[in-house]
Amino acid sequence: DLVDSCSPNNTHGEIVLAAAAAGKMIACEKPLAMDGAEARKMTEAVKKAGVPNMVWYNYRRVPAITLARKIIAEGRLGKIFHFRSAFLQDWTISADVPMIWRLNKDIAGSGVAGDLISHLFDTARYLIGDVAAVSALTKVFVDERDYKDPETGKTSKRKIEIDDACLVLAEFSNGAVGTFEATRYARGHKAANSFEVNGETGSVIFDLEDMAHLKFFDHSDPKHIHGFRNILVTSAEHPYMEKWWVPGLAIGYEHTFTHQLADFFEALENGKKFSPDFEEATKCQLILDAIGDAASTRTRVEVSSF
Amino acid sequence: DLVDSCSPNNTHGEIVLAAAAAGKMIACEKPLAMDGAEARKMTEAVKKAGVPNMVWYNYRRVPAITLARKIIAEGRLGKIFHFRSAFLQDWTISADVPMIWRLNKDIAGSGVAGDLISHLFDTARYLIGDVAAVSALTKVFVDERDYKDPETGKTSKRKIEIDDACLVLAEFSNGAVGTFEATRYARGHKAANSFEVNGETGSVIFDLEDMAHLKFFDHSDPKHIHGFRNILVTSAEHPYMEKWWVPGLAIGYEHTFTHQLADFFEALENGKKFSPDFEEATKCQLILDAIGDAASTRTRVEVSSF
Amino acid sequence: DLVDSCSPNNTHGEIVLAAAAAGKMIACEKPLAMDGAEARKMTEAVKKAGVPNMVWYNYRRVPAITLARKIIAEGRLGKIFHFRSAFLQDWTISADVPMIWRLNKDIAGSGVAGDLISHLFDTARYLIGDVAAVSALTKVFVDERDYKDPETGKTSKRKIEIDDACLVLAEFSNGAVGTFEATRYARGHKAANSFEVNGETGSVIFDLEDMAHLKFFDHSDPKHIHGFRNILVTSAEHPYMEKWWVPGLAIGYEHTFTHQLADFFEALENGKKFSPDFEEATKCQLILDAIGDAASTRTRVEVSSF
Amino acid sequence: DLVDSCSPNNTHGEIVLAAAAAGKMIACEKPLAMDGAEARKMTEAVKKAGVPNMVWYNYRRVPAITLARKIIAEGRLGKIFHFRSAFLQDWTISADVPMIWRLNKDIAGSGVAGDLISHLFDTARYLIGDVAAVSALTKVFVDERDYKDPETGKTSKRKIEIDDACLVLAEFSNGAVGTFEATRYARGHKAANSFEVNGETGSVIFDLEDMAHLKFFDHSDPKHIHGFRNILVTSAEHPYMEKWWVPGLAIGYEHTFTHQLADFFEALENGKKFSPDFEEATKCQLILDAIGDAASTRTRVEVSSF
Repeated sequence: DLVDSCSPNNTHGEIVLAAAAAGKMIACEKPLAMDGAEARKMTEAVKKAGVPNMVWYNYRRVPAITLARKIIAEGRLGKIFHFRSAFLQDWTISADVPMIWRLNKDIAGSGVAGDLISHLFDTARYLIGDVAAVSALTKVFVDERDYKDPETGKTSKRKIEIDDACLVLAEFSNGAVGTFEATRYARGHKAANSFEVNGETGSVIFDLEDMAHLKFFDHSDPKHIHGFRNILVTSAEHPYMEKWWVPGLAIGYEHTFTHQLADFFEALENGKKFSPDFEEATKCQLILDAIGDAASTRTRVEVSSF
Repeated sequence: DLVDSCSPNNTHGEIVLAAAAAGKMIACEKPLAMDGAEARKMTEAVKKAGVPNMVWYNYRRVPAITLARKIIAEGRLGKIFHFRSAFLQDWTISADVPMIWRLNKDIAGSGVAGDLISHLFDTARYLIGDVAAVSALTKVFVDERDYKDPETGKTSKRKIEIDDACLVLAEFSNGAVGTFEATRYARGHKAANSFEVNGETGSVIFDLEDMAHLKFFDHSDPKHIHGFRNILVTSAEHPYMEKWWVPGLAIGYEHTFTHQLADFFEALENGKKFSPDFEEATKCQLILDAIGDAASTRTRVEVSSF
Repeated sequence: DLVDSCSPNNTHGEIVLAAAAAGKMIACEKPLAMDGAEARKMTEAVKKAGVPNMVWYNYRRVPAITLARKIIAEGRLGKIFHFRSAFLQDWTISADVPMIWRLNKDIAGSGVAGDLISHLFDTARYLIGDVAAVSALTKVFVDERDYKDPETGKTSKRKIEIDDACLVLAEFSNGAVGTFEATRYARGHKAANSFEVNGETGSVIFDLEDMAHLKFFDHSDPKHIHGFRNILVTSAEHPYMEKWWVPGLAIGYEHTFTHQLADFFEALENGKKFSPDFEEATKCQLILDAIGDAASTRTRVEVSSF
Repeated sequence: DLVDSCSPNNTHGEIVLAAAAAGKMIACEKPLAMDGAEARKMTEAVKKAGVPNMVWYNYRRVPAITLARKIIAEGRLGKIFHFRSAFLQDWTISADVPMIWRLNKDIAGSGVAGDLISHLFDTARYLIGDVAAVSALTKVFVDERDYKDPETGKTSKRKIEIDDACLVLAEFSNGAVGTFEATRYARGHKAANSFEVNGETGSVIFDLEDMAHLKFFDHSDPKHIHGFRNILVTSAEHPYMEKWWVPGLAIGYEHTFTHQLADFFEALENGKKFSPDFEEATKCQLILDAIGDAASTRTRVEVSSF
């Protein structure tokens, strides 16, 4: 009934087109495609086939992030000024790490841009809205690595063409501005997917390495008790949590996938649009395209509309 | 093959005795029994029947707590001076909460002593060793609640006889001293099961509301970089974590049960003793007995040996 | 005009009596005296002499602690259930630390009881109110140290008679209960003077090692944004801070003494009672007496009234 | 003997030139000048006059920041990859804040660039080294404010020409890359001057709102105890702290100025070069010039050398 395309990035296109042609529902890993053009083509295919589809931008279903959106939707932050985000890892610092597929441009399409910063932009779009333009800087810190040829089995040095680090300044359509950074060279960080949103009347802060908490500042509090609340997002009042344990007890990373699947099923059952679907993932892909252009030209680049 | 006694405290005895008589393996919720005498009797029954047995003091299998034990076993803390612990909740503050079974002495045997402080003492025994003597103070903050008679269905006020809060000073056999506190009247805390161990050359700190981290201070570090390390316990080097996600991604509360069951199966397979079994849980129960005596006499009471 | 008795504990009595006889205003280091009897005598002397007096329980003037009192006074915590506190240091762990005056019972009167736990009880009295009764456990971890005779200059081993650690369970007059711990054997802590207060509708948490912040939980918040606020106590709305820097910039430890002196001068000018004065410090001293009795008898001891 | 130019930015030039001509030692507030050209001229003047000079980039003397430099100098971070920084405030969010001098381009020269991001770049240069090129994005969120004409006393609306927010991507000469952000529109932050440095073998993290701590990750630790140490920078082993209180007790913001003055005096006495002097401040000013150009052209701009 459903095809889940969870193989490397350069295989999604073919799998998705075939699955759509076969009338299957489709789930696809992120990033959806190798570039915006391919993503558009895939989106057109699923639309034409009329098959339900979704993309595994699973962090939207971390209860703390879902709660951040609820708090913003309630108007508690007011007009948004800033989005400030980073996705920090440290697993490729050693030059001895070989060129696995995530470091191979032919297979991955890009480096931390597609793997990590795409998550930050999906979160930003989920919380703040569309991105209009970007400036970017990418960097390769280890410029060649051992590559084992899958056919000959021989290992030789090969040049690294993906981005080890990707830094972006963004302008949102609503006037807010943002910083985005992804790297695999931030010693001490494993999955530090973090963001902060500052609005006229409040702010929220999240870090995946402390995934059960959301920090929230409310300017409407009496001034002498102003402070970021550290919300432990484990109670029945919090998104998804009524279905899990008693208050105070954490869920794990995998539950975010459970939540996404549950919501997908519910959307199916009720004939509702599920988000993020291929169309939304394509919008992320178009941001990645703009980042690539901005990084190579070192100028401001506008994001194409879908 | 296995009976899991996960019904209220006053039912464990009968279930366990029957299961042992039937030659079943037995898992039992904590506290094991209504008091030390019953726990002893249950332990003798499983020993006589020769059936594998375990008690769900699941927090030993929070990877951060297992890591704390490993760090202590490596000698990194040296001679132990202090154990400092608390289990804080806030769900019974409202006088409108009816007398459910956990607040009913006939069924629960005790209040936070059996429900919460028992976990702290199991952790203390796991990390530091046996407790020799205690002083204690218990408190009831809401002294009567609505009780619905299960037979007549009628609701009436009934006196609360369990402990709403339980505070203990403890002497360990090895010369360390400890503070233990459990309460359901700590506004803002949901499952703040926390402890700190101070030794001659190091300290560790844990809080279940931040269950993926363990703090560790190492006095052998150069003095100008002395500080509590905040260890994110999600890497392959950490207990149990090699079996789960990539570094940085958290597991949930339920995984502690999975770990316990996995270890129980492994012990079965290899003919090893599993811990904590009924004998260890009985030692906890004897501490609870001493706490009860110490609280009612307001004197120091020695803990009975098994 | 003013005599400040800031020499060791066993000298305060003589200095204060002489200063009072000379009609001087008097400031005195804490603990005020060697025991309650001496404190009473000193208090009677300053009262009789009619001289303004104060005791350096300076932590009341940490802005975050003053703010805690304000929050409690505003009724934001409601009925108080728990006080939970510790003062942790680690400077006497090494057996090579000689018997300086703070470790000498003849001079200091007591160990961490007078030096550290007295601060916790002053804070507790300031925030919650009087203490009615205590249980206690004291401990010596290093039982003899090098002592240099001030007259002969010779060094020899001498038995330690003060308390290296002091653990207390307390009952407040208003029905709340508390834990208090002081030690110089908590590796990794330098001046971790911390407390938490839990009330029916809120809680506050403080730690001197993070002295610019106060954490505050407000149960009246909407449930989905429940969480401890981390208040940065550096704005004009906060106690004492209007007189210092712009918001966000910290003051240091010494400013607490400046605040106390400023308040003392203001009380002088306006003919108001200053707090804490000798009478309040005597109440702390009577708690220390009760702790001493409770520790030696290992029974509950009521605190004498002034 | 010494002239301290601590009036608004547009007055430094004239004051400094006059003071240099008079042969006075000179201290000057940051930013040193209205632009790089003026800064160069001032630097040439003090050099020609041969007068000792310094600029109040006081944060270098926060003990935790000085310690960060020491840790880096010891080689504990190895090759540097990333600098990540922000200076967040929230005091101009209200449109009712009038156009005071800091919001007036004629007087301040720039907005958060000169006031805040200059501090971040001074810290970056102190810790990592020179900046080679930048991309930038600036933003005005409130575009006109009440302006009171100092001569007529009349108040009218006037366009805001300074930057309310300034976002920068930077390339260091040594190959590291950095993000810099300054804003007065980050609700909930008062003086959140924070940075992180990631190197091959370690990382450090600092935030001025918690100024007594430095976080340090050491990759050379055994893997199972990897974690960011939270160093409480208050002991005698830490920069400047031997002169202040006993371990654990904090100093305040003003002490950073005391440290700078003490170091300046010591340099005077010993005939050593003091840092940061006018020359170093000019290098910061040239970065600000490049940021201005990069923001207006939205392209990468190289930083001029002194």
